[in-house]
Amino acid sequence: MPTSHDVARLAGVSQPTVSRALSDDPRVARATRQRVRRAAIELGYVPSRRGRSLSTRRTGQIAVVVSELSNPFYMQTIACIYDALEALGQRMVVLTEPPVPSISAERLLDGSVDGAILATTLLDSSLPAELALRGLPFVQLNRGVDEREFDACMTDNRDGGRLAAELLLGLGHRHIAMIAGPADTSTGRDREAGFRAVLAAAAVQLPDERAARVPFTFASGYELAVEMLAADRPPTALFCANDVVALGALNAARAHGVDVPGQLTVVGFDDVEISSWEVVQLTTLRQDLPRMASEAVALLGARIADPGRPASRVIVPTVLIERATHGPPCAVP
Amino acid sequence: MPTSHDVARLAGVSQPTVSRALSDDPRVARATRQRVRRAAIELGYVPSRRGRSLSTRRTGQIAVVVSELSNPFYMQTIACIYDALEALGQRMVVLTEPPVPSISAERLLDGSVDGAILATTLLDSSLPAELALRGLPFVQLNRGVDEREFDACMTDNRDGGRLAAELLLGLGHRHIAMIAGPADTSTGRDREAGFRAVLAAAAVQLPDERAARVPFTFASGYELAVEMLAADRPPTALFCANDVVALGALNAARAHGVDVPGQLTVVGFDDVEISSWEVVQLTTLRQDLPRMASEAVALLGARIADPGRPASRVIVPTVLIERATHGPPCAVP
Repeated sequence: MPTSHDVARLAGVSQPTVSRALSDDPRVARATRQRVRRAAIELGYVPSRRGRSLSTRRTGQIAVVVSELSNPFYMQTIACIYDALEALGQRMVVLTEPPVPSISAERLLDGSVDGAILATTLLDSSLPAELALRGLPFVQLNRGVDEREFDACMTDNRDGGRLAAELLLGLGHRHIAMIAGPADTSTGRDREAGFRAVLAAAAVQLPDERAARVPFTFASGYELAVEMLAADRPPTALFCANDVVALGALNAARAHGVDVPGQLTVVGFDDVEISSWEVVQLTTLRQDLPRMASEAVALLGARIADPGRPASRVIVPTVLIERATHGPPCAVP
Repeated sequence: MPTSHDVARLAGVSQPTVSRALSDDPRVARATRQRVRRAAIELGYVPSRRGRSLSTRRTGQIAVVVSELSNPFYMQTIACIYDALEALGQRMVVLTEPPVPSISAERLLDGSVDGAILATTLLDSSLPAELALRGLPFVQLNRGVDEREFDACMTDNRDGGRLAAELLLGLGHRHIAMIAGPADTSTGRDREAGFRAVLAAAAVQLPDERAARVPFTFASGYELAVEMLAADRPPTALFCANDVVALGALNAARAHGVDVPGQLTVVGFDDVEISSWEVVQLTTLRQDLPRMASEAVALLGARIADPGRPASRVIVPTVLIERATHGPPCAVP
């Protein structure tokens, strides 16, 4: 096996220059970097990350654990995390699995990563406690468990639910429906709680036939909307647990000839890019993803640097984005 | 450091059972797996992937290299690759970077992966040749270089372009426009070539002011469509290099009050999930992604097993999906 000494000799540089050149360190002149790279290729020299990690005990890799890749929200989340990690020279490993069985602690504790960002943790997950017990630094992003001793960064979900309810009541809606997210997610639970609190304070009813809890998918938004729109007296406004559910509802309304917002107001949550499209123009609650991702990466970096530091919980404000899917209730019932 | 012997002793099982139990091998009874897991946690035992890989020389990780994560096509690609790898017990590592600078061979040759799936290779990329030279198994998926000595799995891009042109000509369009993809991608180049060949054979002109080459983004589709629709005599039909570009064009048409398909036919390429939505209903050419991903994973597996085998190039048929954005040209010019 050729060593960095061999490369240094062939390229006519010092040994430390070899490793700097191969990691594209700008302090090494471009021509020198090219010469070193050519020498390394010629000799078949491979700088071993494994070798490096055995000496530094750092792999330079951070795992992102996410279970709903078909939701564009998580695609944008991954892109934002990638940018935030890249700025720190960290490599991102995406681990994705169906929600059940969830990812096992073993898969994260095998020595291949320095830490983890958990993006889709369920409320009853034992993963955060297990990772804490076994000493792997991690941060919860977007969703989390309720225990306060773990780092987390979330949007203000409860306040987002409140803002949605205030918008609907302010427009004059009283016959309101909600397609909430799963009760075993902090996001689904908290958005629903904020929404219900405002309706309850205004004595506006939200009976069971107009309040569903479904998975965060396009299909469940579509199906529930079809069901609710087929009622004798359909709702005039619909709050959806996230944008993907709202997009399902919007498409169901379109398929069944229900005008939005003329006959039905639809409000989502997340503000994925698609929601701003001209053919969609969804009114929604925005999560500030770039900010959340960089806060989470900063929390994780601090945790890696100081495993004993007290836990932080960063709550990022949620912002109402008013587009074209909300309006006053239809005059004709 | 506790060893698997310690875990075996505490759990009252044999040492091979420990490793089977911790990898969730169904041959070990569920209760035994739980007992072993509890013993491992109690002792703080961590099975080391690094240790394993040093002995087996396999990491169990496959890298997916992709540069355009904001395109939902690649998120679906990643999900399909994930499924195909998972079926083989392989772990997926996603490496994503801005197109320039492209990913370096060093990043793949650091010993952390057994192979790579390259999803967004540019025609002039030296990465495939470099990986081949340095012995890392890889397969090109979706895009690739022209050299035939590397494994690849692609949709039939040229035929897709042909099918699009035949659809437009068959509807009676003669004043046609094209927003093609970058000339340095095999997908962009081949779709354009297939499209142009059919038009040329029918003696239908495609002058420069109605033929653009742009990045595969929503924004470039939007901007180019705005430009083309502002012409003295706008095109009656528009073929777009992919669905994201077509979605940009559709939204531009909507924003400028141009009826689709009444005044403008729009055809995409890929058939991402969004294209089937009720508010979109894009007519497009479908790539069979699940099949492409499993073919690519199979090619890579064969390459890892037998580095000397001859290269394969799998071309998957492209299928025309007729939805609601195509129609005959408008009678009034």
